Amino acid sequence: MDAACARVRELGFTPHEIPGAGRTAIGITGNEGGIPPDLFSGLPGVAQLIAVTRPYKLVDREATDSSTVVEIAPGVTVGGEQLLVVGGPCSVESRDQVMTAARAVRKGGGHALRGGAFKPRTSPYAFQGLKEQGLELLAEARETTGLPVVTEVKDTETLPMVERWADVLQIGARNMQNYSLLEAVGSSTKPVLLKRGLSATIKELLLAAEYIFAKGNQQVILCERGIRTFETATRNTLDLGAVVMLKRMTHLPVDVDPSHGIGVWYGVTPLASQDWIVEAR
Amino acid sequence: MDAACARVRELGFTPHEIPGAGRTAIGITGNEGGIPPDLFSGLPGVAQLIAVTRPYKLVDREATDSSTVVEIAPGVTVGGEQLLVVGGPCSVESRDQVMTAARAVRKGGGHALRGGAFKPRTSPYAFQGLKEQGLELLAEARETTGLPVVTEVKDTETLPMVERWADVLQIGARNMQNYSLLEAVGSSTKPVLLKRGLSATIKELLLAAEYIFAKGNQQVILCERGIRTFETATRNTLDLGAVVMLKRMTHLPVDVDPSHGIGVWYGVTPLASQDWIVEAR
Amino acid sequence: MDAACARVRELGFTPHEIPGAGRTAIGITGNEGGIPPDLFSGLPGVAQLIAVTRPYKLVDREATDSSTVVEIAPGVTVGGEQLLVVGGPCSVESRDQVMTAARAVRKGGGHALRGGAFKPRTSPYAFQGLKEQGLELLAEARETTGLPVVTEVKDTETLPMVERWADVLQIGARNMQNYSLLEAVGSSTKPVLLKRGLSATIKELLLAAEYIFAKGNQQVILCERGIRTFETATRNTLDLGAVVMLKRMTHLPVDVDPSHGIGVWYGVTPLASQDWIVEAR
Amino acid sequence: MDAACARVRELGFTPHEIPGAGRTAIGITGNEGGIPPDLFSGLPGVAQLIAVTRPYKLVDREATDSSTVVEIAPGVTVGGEQLLVVGGPCSVESRDQVMTAARAVRKGGGHALRGGAFKPRTSPYAFQGLKEQGLELLAEARETTGLPVVTEVKDTETLPMVERWADVLQIGARNMQNYSLLEAVGSSTKPVLLKRGLSATIKELLLAAEYIFAKGNQQVILCERGIRTFETATRNTLDLGAVVMLKRMTHLPVDVDPSHGIGVWYGVTPLASQDWIVEAR
Repeated sequence: MDAACARVRELGFTPHEIPGAGRTAIGITGNEGGIPPDLFSGLPGVAQLIAVTRPYKLVDREATDSSTVVEIAPGVTVGGEQLLVVGGPCSVESRDQVMTAARAVRKGGGHALRGGAFKPRTSPYAFQGLKEQGLELLAEARETTGLPVVTEVKDTETLPMVERWADVLQIGARNMQNYSLLEAVGSSTKPVLLKRGLSATIKELLLAAEYIFAKGNQQVILCERGIRTFETATRNTLDLGAVVMLKRMTHLPVDVDPSHGIGVWYGVTPLASQDWIVEAR
Repeated sequence: MDAACARVRELGFTPHEIPGAGRTAIGITGNEGGIPPDLFSGLPGVAQLIAVTRPYKLVDREATDSSTVVEIAPGVTVGGEQLLVVGGPCSVESRDQVMTAARAVRKGGGHALRGGAFKPRTSPYAFQGLKEQGLELLAEARETTGLPVVTEVKDTETLPMVERWADVLQIGARNMQNYSLLEAVGSSTKPVLLKRGLSATIKELLLAAEYIFAKGNQQVILCERGIRTFETATRNTLDLGAVVMLKRMTHLPVDVDPSHGIGVWYGVTPLASQDWIVEAR
Repeated sequence: MDAACARVRELGFTPHEIPGAGRTAIGITGNEGGIPPDLFSGLPGVAQLIAVTRPYKLVDREATDSSTVVEIAPGVTVGGEQLLVVGGPCSVESRDQVMTAARAVRKGGGHALRGGAFKPRTSPYAFQGLKEQGLELLAEARETTGLPVVTEVKDTETLPMVERWADVLQIGARNMQNYSLLEAVGSSTKPVLLKRGLSATIKELLLAAEYIFAKGNQQVILCERGIRTFETATRNTLDLGAVVMLKRMTHLPVDVDPSHGIGVWYGVTPLASQDWIVEAR
Repeated sequence: MDAACARVRELGFTPHEIPGAGRTAIGITGNEGGIPPDLFSGLPGVAQLIAVTRPYKLVDREATDSSTVVEIAPGVTVGGEQLLVVGGPCSVESRDQVMTAARAVRKGGGHALRGGAFKPRTSPYAFQGLKEQGLELLAEARETTGLPVVTEVKDTETLPMVERWADVLQIGARNMQNYSLLEAVGSSTKPVLLKRGLSATIKELLLAAEYIFAKGNQQVILCERGIRTFETATRNTLDLGAVVMLKRMTHLPVDVDPSHGIGVWYGVTPLASQDWIVEAR
């Protein structure tokens, strides 16, 4: 392993260790064209050299032999056998509101609490969130309920503050291609929940994840939250076909956000549940 | 009932009887503005006058007290408790192909066979279907397997021929706003499977169904088959949020076509099955 | 020429003569793969064999050496030097309305009158047009003003009636992929104005034109009228980039419909005029 | 004026002076509901109190009596009578390339030079720009040709550096809703060219401009550069209808970027020129 990484560095490239179930993959970036396989022949511990032709190299399904499991808190994982359920308010508004929501999530069997302390709003005059006070309320709710906290980070300036309080750093849809922010969370030790942009293709979502991964943070969770189409009867168009494709294309876990996807409370259960086709009404 | 319908006709409007579980609704069309309730007061058997404000009056959920159940063959229904599974080839190409497909559908637990004898193709030089010979092959497969046949009708000229052989008349996505065809199948005695247009809104789909319903054919099944968006990794974007909305907005049954929705075989099961979120790969 | 066409028929294919400025092209359809050039060598009058690789063969820019000029009335052309201006009401509603509009078009320097006698409406309860009476009013306006008439044909049943009165047969956006109707107008002797479908790609528009062309009617005018996107501030999104591409891709004339494209009166002049960038307000 | 601003501040709101041709408007933000007119009655110099009901208050056409003219360099304006033509390479790659391009722009009658020194790229492995060295080359080209420089700022960290060298700060499409960056350039003294996001509505573009304006920078130029739709034959769909609407809706100048809009060199002139309808080929 070390020998292989050293060789990669000698060649002027960057090695990325990606631990798998049966073996550890070493992703290589920084090369312009293909790398001749014999540069690595004879190195102890190297089983195989796989050329990844897609532009997202490290998050590609081929890059490792197992699916990535992200542990967002001790025993709370996503990407494995467990189905992660996350609930909570859009914005943190008051202690009462957060506590009530957190207890409801806990009681309903949810595994994590979400809520926005920093809100990137379409209008400069809309409520922009309680900021640090909101983060403190989320942390207090975690104390009480034991639920880890997922919350949005909206810029590099406030990233250190959000990192201090949150368990998972959420990158919002509008920031999916804010590359400076992606690189910043790529250097964080906290897991990242990356939401698909309103009109981002599946490929662009994977490339955004690659930005984070390439900086060293391998704890990336993708999130389908609905795309923008001509349809106005629903808030967005939840693209569940994209989830199917993503599971084929990447080893990263994929989350679904049915609330933003449809925009009405009565759509959440059918879109998330296991028997929506018959039950939906 | 008769008295109420007679009164509707006297007023110069058109009555549409829509049988429900507990009572029969009489949809009224042809009126320009609202109808004063007292025009119907005192008539025997009239329980209530409900103003439907939406432009699709007869297919609106409010128009009747129960969901429409369409029986496509004796004992084969859609819209009730049973989940209808339809399978088969895109186009009918040969006896062998149809028979093999029909037997596979039967064996797999499917309830109906689909296949195109008339194919509306983007290119004038593409195979346009086996036409009547294709219909005969479908009918032969029905004889052998007992599966009712769903097949597309592409114009009013060939409607009588398709009606003769098919159990369900399919209106393709490109014909969803072919109003002359909608009116023609509205006068048929066969059930109609109406596919959503590539860029049709939910409201436009309901209005297309209203065209059929208004002509007297109440056996209409809606079908979500994916819409056209910016995403190119999937063939279409299957809009399952629309299914949720449709079940709220109309009493008609709603079908999902995952094959056209995603365009790859490995996406069909996850998109149709009950545990796609975890299983999708 | 005749020898070449005869040879094409002998081979089991269909020849299509497309007259050009300097020479006449013979489009060949019905072949599955490429045609060996030597099958035509030595034939008198054959200058060149050009393989058209695009799926739209006859309307492809390569198919002929000059742009198609369609004469919609004596001296009124589109596709040449003249800029064709067409005006008129959405639907024909009354003699007064049509006459007033026709005179305004004439006075404003327009070259043709448009107006719908058959209206394919989203709702079955909306006004569907004055039908034959509307056609008669349009013809009367033509008598008075000398303006040729462009009007929509919505189905094959009423095509003979529309053909009798109209100078140009319009295929509406919702019927762009109604292939039976395309084939029917392909057998007409009247020019066809083919409107782009709401979510039709440029390629699909060309293939729809190919349907008409392949049936023998070479007088086809394409029309960009706006596509359906996520934007709701304008009625549609007028795709002027598509016009640029179409002029490169096909020898057919291309029209623009700014009224449907933007949906507000004050947008028509800026979108159609020659100095919209500065003047638009 | 001062009295009016003082009153606004006394009420706990924020005044924004917007100089116009005949009078100066004072935009008020920070109020939740409407403001009773009599709070300002009797104040010297106050002509009128206009309630702006749209969510973008300061950039709304109603907010002032004249169009905003932005001067990007002495004598080089946009928003007035002059048509501003900007040219240059996508990325700055070398001294030679920039100089050649700058001289061509100058010779062709262009008024400003554009070129990217910081490039937000979809892939983390793509060339990210020459950074400060690129800015220096742009400045050198300005020295030689006299053309002011428009260049992208991609994050708040590098804003001070870009501000030092550039004449106009460009906010790229992917950053249109990067609100922290919008606020940062809102505090700059340099004019801002704000590009419309790939799937941003007209309203969202105006709200993004409002973010900048609300921070005090009134030198904002909007830019339509094509939106993302289902069409793949062109790189984007240039939405010229949006330009028409924007000129009605806001007093800010609106630029068009035909290069990104269509993505092929031969489309730039037709889309930008004054007689595109006939000339486009």
